[in-house]
Amino acid sequence: MTPPDSLSERLFNTLCSIPLIDPHTHINPLSPHCESLADILTYHYYTELVHSAGMPREVIEHPDLSAKEKLSRLIDFLDRIDNTIQHEWIMEMCREFFDFHEDTLTPENWESVYDSSEKKMASDSWETSVLETSGIEKVFLTNDFDDSLEGWDTQRYVPCLRCDDLVFHLTRPEVQGRLEHATNVRVKDVPTFSMAVASLFEHFTSHGAKACAVSLPPDFLPISQIPSDIDPLLQRLFIGKDLSEPEHRAVQQYVFWLLALSCQEYNLPFQLMIGVHRQVYRRGVYQGQDLFDQQTSLFQFRELFNAFPNVKFPISVLTSSQNQELVAYSWIFPNVYCFGHWWYSNVPTFIDRDERARLQAVPKTKQMGWYSDVYKLEFALPKCHMYRRVLANILAEDFVLARNWSEDRAIDLGKQILRTNVETVFDIR
Amino acid sequence: MTPPDSLSERLFNTLCSIPLIDPHTHINPLSPHCESLADILTYHYYTELVHSAGMPREVIEHPDLSAKEKLSRLIDFLDRIDNTIQHEWIMEMCREFFDFHEDTLTPENWESVYDSSEKKMASDSWETSVLETSGIEKVFLTNDFDDSLEGWDTQRYVPCLRCDDLVFHLTRPEVQGRLEHATNVRVKDVPTFSMAVASLFEHFTSHGAKACAVSLPPDFLPISQIPSDIDPLLQRLFIGKDLSEPEHRAVQQYVFWLLALSCQEYNLPFQLMIGVHRQVYRRGVYQGQDLFDQQTSLFQFRELFNAFPNVKFPISVLTSSQNQELVAYSWIFPNVYCFGHWWYSNVPTFIDRDERARLQAVPKTKQMGWYSDVYKLEFALPKCHMYRRVLANILAEDFVLARNWSEDRAIDLGKQILRTNVETVFDIR
Amino acid sequence: MTPPDSLSERLFNTLCSIPLIDPHTHINPLSPHCESLADILTYHYYTELVHSAGMPREVIEHPDLSAKEKLSRLIDFLDRIDNTIQHEWIMEMCREFFDFHEDTLTPENWESVYDSSEKKMASDSWETSVLETSGIEKVFLTNDFDDSLEGWDTQRYVPCLRCDDLVFHLTRPEVQGRLEHATNVRVKDVPTFSMAVASLFEHFTSHGAKACAVSLPPDFLPISQIPSDIDPLLQRLFIGKDLSEPEHRAVQQYVFWLLALSCQEYNLPFQLMIGVHRQVYRRGVYQGQDLFDQQTSLFQFRELFNAFPNVKFPISVLTSSQNQELVAYSWIFPNVYCFGHWWYSNVPTFIDRDERARLQAVPKTKQMGWYSDVYKLEFALPKCHMYRRVLANILAEDFVLARNWSEDRAIDLGKQILRTNVETVFDIR
Repeated sequence: MTPPDSLSERLFNTLCSIPLIDPHTHINPLSPHCESLADILTYHYYTELVHSAGMPREVIEHPDLSAKEKLSRLIDFLDRIDNTIQHEWIMEMCREFFDFHEDTLTPENWESVYDSSEKKMASDSWETSVLETSGIEKVFLTNDFDDSLEGWDTQRYVPCLRCDDLVFHLTRPEVQGRLEHATNVRVKDVPTFSMAVASLFEHFTSHGAKACAVSLPPDFLPISQIPSDIDPLLQRLFIGKDLSEPEHRAVQQYVFWLLALSCQEYNLPFQLMIGVHRQVYRRGVYQGQDLFDQQTSLFQFRELFNAFPNVKFPISVLTSSQNQELVAYSWIFPNVYCFGHWWYSNVPTFIDRDERARLQAVPKTKQMGWYSDVYKLEFALPKCHMYRRVLANILAEDFVLARNWSEDRAIDLGKQILRTNVETVFDIR
Repeated sequence: MTPPDSLSERLFNTLCSIPLIDPHTHINPLSPHCESLADILTYHYYTELVHSAGMPREVIEHPDLSAKEKLSRLIDFLDRIDNTIQHEWIMEMCREFFDFHEDTLTPENWESVYDSSEKKMASDSWETSVLETSGIEKVFLTNDFDDSLEGWDTQRYVPCLRCDDLVFHLTRPEVQGRLEHATNVRVKDVPTFSMAVASLFEHFTSHGAKACAVSLPPDFLPISQIPSDIDPLLQRLFIGKDLSEPEHRAVQQYVFWLLALSCQEYNLPFQLMIGVHRQVYRRGVYQGQDLFDQQTSLFQFRELFNAFPNVKFPISVLTSSQNQELVAYSWIFPNVYCFGHWWYSNVPTFIDRDERARLQAVPKTKQMGWYSDVYKLEFALPKCHMYRRVLANILAEDFVLARNWSEDRAIDLGKQILRTNVETVFDIR
Repeated sequence: MTPPDSLSERLFNTLCSIPLIDPHTHINPLSPHCESLADILTYHYYTELVHSAGMPREVIEHPDLSAKEKLSRLIDFLDRIDNTIQHEWIMEMCREFFDFHEDTLTPENWESVYDSSEKKMASDSWETSVLETSGIEKVFLTNDFDDSLEGWDTQRYVPCLRCDDLVFHLTRPEVQGRLEHATNVRVKDVPTFSMAVASLFEHFTSHGAKACAVSLPPDFLPISQIPSDIDPLLQRLFIGKDLSEPEHRAVQQYVFWLLALSCQEYNLPFQLMIGVHRQVYRRGVYQGQDLFDQQTSLFQFRELFNAFPNVKFPISVLTSSQNQELVAYSWIFPNVYCFGHWWYSNVPTFIDRDERARLQAVPKTKQMGWYSDVYKLEFALPKCHMYRRVLANILAEDFVLARNWSEDRAIDLGKQILRTNVETVFDIR
C-alpha cells in the first residue's frame, strides 16, 4: 500500500462523508452491537489469530469462562499479532470509540478501556452513534430461512435470505423440521419442496428482503438437474434415508438451481460467496476452521450465468488470484457483479491489487466496492476505513495523477462504487 | 500504477521515439484503418463493455443499423464505462488524432468529432500518418491459411499464418473446401494432409511470412500423436463422417504437432496465445463471448518445448496469475519467449505486475514487451502508449532508482524489449 | 519495488546490523565458500540463464573445461542477462567483496576481478570474513541422510536432515545400500525400515540437527498409509523388484508420513518446500531442469497439518500465486509457518507482494522472512540484501507511514521475522 499523501488523504476524507449501505453482514438486529471490549476481542479473527500464534483453544473456549476473563487471556497473546491489520482494527476502534491512543492493549492498560467500553456501550444512543460515526445508514442481514423477520426496523436492518442450510444441510432432520415449521409445508418430494421454497421467498420479500446469499465450496459446480431425477432422492431424504455422495451433490445442485429460479421470479439479486471449504482445520476455534483450495474457476459457473440473464449475481471470491476471473467475467457477463473483498482477501494489499484491476477494466456500474461481513456494528468502522484508504490511494494514483482526472470526478467514481451501485443493484429507495 | 514523475516522463518520451514493429495484429491490410469515429467505438472492447453495463445486444447489433446510429447508441452508455482504461484509449485517440480535449464523448459533443474523424480518415495520407504518429514501421498480420497474400506491401504488412482453423475447425466442410482450394491438394488422409500443410508453408514463406500463430483453450494438451493412429481418423473426417470427442482431440493434437514440425522445417516462430475458451457467454456481442478458466499450466506444454528446441515459441498467457509460469518457463527453456500482454491482461495494473517480474528474472533477449492485437491501426497508439507508460515507470523505479542505472542504460533495455528482440526473433531485416 | 527513500534506507541499514541465522542452505561445511569468481558464475542461476539466452549446454558443461575457461565463456553471454536481479547479485558481490565498481563484467575487465577473487578467497580468514560481512552467525545445512555429520563445527554449520532420497528414491539400489550402511540395519520390510529411520533421527539429533527438509512435487498428496498395506511393497522394493506407479506413490506417502511421525517424536521442525517438478526441461544445464505446475494447493496437506499438531511445518511455496494460501493456512493452523521466498519467487517483485500479505495477515511469530538456499557462502550477502531492501520498503510504507508506527517498532518487527523466530522455531540457543 502506498503511503497516504495529502491528495489521497483529502480524497479519503471526502469518501468518509458519503453515507453507506452495508450490503452484507451477519448482524443480529436484536443485538447489533458489542456490550464491551470483550465482545470486540472475541470476534473470530482474534480468537483464530491468537490460537494460530500458540494459544490453546481450551484456554479461550471453555464454556464457563466469563467474558472478562476470556478477554484478559486474549490480551496476553495480543502482542503476537500486533503486526496484523486485524489488530489495527482493534486499535482504530479504541481510538474512535473510546478515545484510547496507546499503540496496543496490554495486561496493564486494558481494564480501563474495558470499563469505559462497558459504560459507553450501555448507553441507549450507542447503536445509532456507532452507525453515525461509521457513516452507515442501512445494514443488510443474512437471515436464516426460518427467521420471523420481525421485531426490528427492516428499513435500517434489511433482510436477506441466507441459503446455505437449504443447499448443503437438507439431510439434517433439524433443518427439515425447521423448513416444515417455517413454511407449513409437509415436504416429501420435488413439488412440495418447491412449494416450501416459494413460501420462503414470499415471506422474505413481503418483509422487505433485498437479496439471497450463499457461500459455496471451491469445487461446487452449479448445473441444472432434471426435477424427475431429483424427486426420488428428495423422497428418500425426507423420510430420513441416506443418499450416496453423487446423489447428495445432485440434490445440492437442484436446490441451488431452484433458488436461482426463485431469485429470478422474485427479482432478488443472488450474492454468491465462492471458495470456502468448511472445517479444514478440525481442532480450530469457533469459526476459525475454514480454508480454501485455490484450484477453482468461475468457468464452473458459466451455465448458471447463461441460464439466468435477469438475475443479478454479486460475486465474492476468496482469493486475490481469482480476482482476474471476477474482473473478466463481470466485464463480459451483464449479470455478474464484483462484490467487495471477502475474508482472506480483506487485507489492504489484496484489496489494493484487486480494486485496481476492477476499476481499470469493469464498467463502473458493475462493482460494489465494500461490505463489512461483520457480526457486530462496531467493526464496520475500521473495515470501511481500511477500504476507503485503499480506494483513496487508487483514485489518487490511477485517476487523478495518471489520468489527469479532477478530484471531483474521482470522488464521483468512489461514490458510485461505494453507494450508488448498492442502491441500484439491490433496488433500495 | 505509480503516478508519473519527471524521471519516468522523460523515459516515456524517449521510449516513444523508438520506431516499432508490431508483431501481432488482426489488421486487414486492404482496409487497415478506421473510416470514422464509429469504427473506433465498435471495437469489440466497447460493444462488450456497454453490453455488460446493460445495453441489450440487439440495440447495437441489428444488421440494418447505420454506423452513425450505432455510434450514437453506444455514446449513450459510454458514461457507464468511463472509468475503464479502454475508455481512456478512446479519449487518447480523440486527443491525438482529432484534437478533441473533453473528458468524454457525450450525446451533445460527439457529432462534431464524428464529422472531423470522417474527414481526416478520408485523406490519402491518413494510413501513413497514423503509423507515423504511433511510431510504428511494420505490422504483423494474422492471415487465414487460404489468404492469397497479395495486393499489399508485405514489407509494411508482414504475413503470419493463423492456424486456428486448421487445428480446431477441420471438421467443417467449409474449412476442408478452403484447404483444398488453397493448396490444390485433395486431402483424404495423413500423407495428403501433410502435403497440403507443406504447400501452405511454402506459400506463406515465399510471400514473406515471419510467424505462425494459434490461440489455444486452457485445457489444450499438446502431445505427439502417431500418424498411423491418425490416418483413419483423417480419412473419416474428410469424407464427412463424425468423430468422437477423444478422436477429435487426437486430430487436433496431431495437426498442432505437425504445424510445430513445419515451423521447425520452415524456420518460423510459433506464437502461442494460451488460455481462451470460446463462446462461454453465448448471448454475448460479436467477439465478446470468450473467457477463460484460470486452472491451466504451461506444464502441459513441456513435451512440446522439449521436442522442438529449434522452434521459437513467443508465448502469451491470458491471466496475470499465469505470468509467473511464463517467467519461469522462459527463464529455463531457451525456446520459450515472453510475448506481450494479452487481452484480459492488457490492463495497466496487470502489465505492471507482469512486466516487473519478466524484467527482473528473464534474460532481456527473451522478451518482447508489446504487440497491439488490434483490428484497426488507430488503436495501436493508445495501447502502445499505455504499455510505454508502465514500462517507463518500471525502468525508473526498478532500474534507475533501485539499481542505480543510468537513464541511457534503462532506455537501452527498453529498446531491446520493444524493438530489437522483435527483429531478432522474427528475423526482420 | 518502490524506490528507496531516506526512511527505508535508514531502516535497511538498521536491519543489516541484526546478526542472522540462515535456516536453509545447501552449503558443504567442508568447502563452504568459493575459490574464485569462477565459482560464483557457475552457480546454476547463471548457467541456466545464459543457456536460456542461447549458450549451448555443451559449451559450458564439457567435463574437461577448466574453471577459468568456463568463466570466460559465461562472461561472453553475461550482457544478455544483465537486466536480471541474479546479475545484480554478481555485481553486488563484486562491489562488496572485490571493490569492483563497473556496471558489469565484460571480456575486457573480468580477469583482474578473477585474480583478485582468487587471492582473497585463498586467505584463511575468508570464510569468517564473508560471514561477518553478510551479518550471518549460523548456517543450516541440508545433509544427506548418510552424512557422518563430523569434521566441522556444528554450532556454526547446523545439521538438517534432507529427506528427498528417502521419500522419492528408495527404489534405487544405491540409496538402499547407503541406508543400510548408514544405519547398520538390514532393511527388508516396514519394521526394519522404521528401525533404520529411527537410527537416522538418533544420529542427526545427537549431532545437533535442528530440522528435517524435503522438496515435494506440486501433485504430492500426503496421506496416511496403513503399515500392513505397505509391508509387502517394501519387501518387494528391498529385494529389487519393481512396483507399479500407484504402489510407488503409496510407499512415498508412507515414508513421508513416517518422517513426520519421527519429527514429532524427535521434536524437529519439518521444512516443506512445495511445488517442484524435477527434470521438466530434460536437456537443461545441471540443476537447471526443474519447473512447476501452478495447479496445486495447500488443501492437499490438510490431513498432515491436522494429524501432527505438535510438528512445526515451515513452508515454502514455489509461486507467488500460492502465497495467499500460505498466508491463510498459517493464519489458521498453529503448526504452519511462512518460510522465506523460494527459487522462482525469490525475485524482488514477488518477495514484495508475498511479504506484504504475510506481514498484514499472519501473526508475527509465525513467519521466518528469509533463508538463502545457497551452495556457497558468498551468495548469502546479495540475497539477504535483496530481501532486507524489500522488507525495509514495506516496513516504511505499510507500518511507519500507513500505520504511524515508530521506526523502532518497525525494526523490532523486522528483527522478529529475520532472527527471533528462527531461534524460537528451530530451538536455537
